[in-house]
Amino acid sequence: MRLTLHTDYALRALMFAAAKGGALSTIAEIVERFGISRGHVMKVVHRLGQKGYLETIRGKKGGIRLARRPGQINIGAVVRDMEEELAVLGCLEGEGYCRIEQCCVLKSALRDATNAFLSTLDGYTLEDLTRPQRALARLLGIEAHSAPFSR
Amino acid sequence: MRLTLHTDYALRALMFAAAKGGALSTIAEIVERFGISRGHVMKVVHRLGQKGYLETIRGKKGGIRLARRPGQINIGAVVRDMEEELAVLGCLEGEGYCRIEQCCVLKSALRDATNAFLSTLDGYTLEDLTRPQRALARLLGIEAHSAPFSR
Repeated sequence: MRLTLHTDYALRALMFAAAKGGALSTIAEIVERFGISRGHVMKVVHRLGQKGYLETIRGKKGGIRLARRPGQINIGAVVRDMEEELAVLGCLEGEGYCRIEQCCVLKSALRDATNAFLSTLDGYTLEDLTRPQRALARLLGIEAHSAPFSR
Repeated sequence: MRLTLHTDYALRALMFAAAKGGALSTIAEIVERFGISRGHVMKVVHRLGQKGYLETIRGKKGGIRLARRPGQINIGAVVRDMEEELAVLGCLEGEGYCRIEQCCVLKSALRDATNAFLSTLDGYTLEDLTRPQRALARLLGIEAHSAPFSR
């Protein structure tokens, strides 16, 4: 049971942008600091833009930054927006997967379990994830003078 | 976020064996009734045997049957036993995955979410999944005279 790398990188990109506060981040920084694939990060940043989590400032001194305050970015929502497939078994995708689907109790058990997973993440915002602000900035090599976004 | 086909087939094999009651099932029956891969079912049945869920009766009239009463087979435990990977992101597998792991709140949020998923399934036994007994037997083409295992 694994979330995709897209979701992984999306969460890291958002945490990086939040740790930067009001300052702009670049894709190159995110790629370099986390040591992750540039191609994936570009796709993920594009998608986070489409979904209204990040905004892109164009030009020579451009970059990306959060489009909303970290306290207004819900982690359960980010996971739902980034995962292409939240059906943990094929039977939750649509009809015709399994012979017993008409009376299957397992199907509703799996639906409840998935909802419990997502509900737990609904209890966190990006602000919660970036609360150890100084430690996070230090580990990410972000300068201390970057003004926090929401504080 | 997807469970493996092994877990999928394991749950179906157990439900089939439970629907058969005390009567023996064969791999051929499970393969044919669900229309799923023989190779996978063989592996899954072997693993369910190793884990003490199924027992194999050898010989010409042999087959498989539940090694415990359906009410004693917990669905959360089956999923834990069948899934090779319950770490929803790489950071939950071990150290050294990510630069911010020392102070990462996301990691504990994901751990809590996974536990919430599994705890929901812990609330179900195989008996719960096979409660619509007649409908299940009908959909699986199991003869009505098969004596229920635990009733």
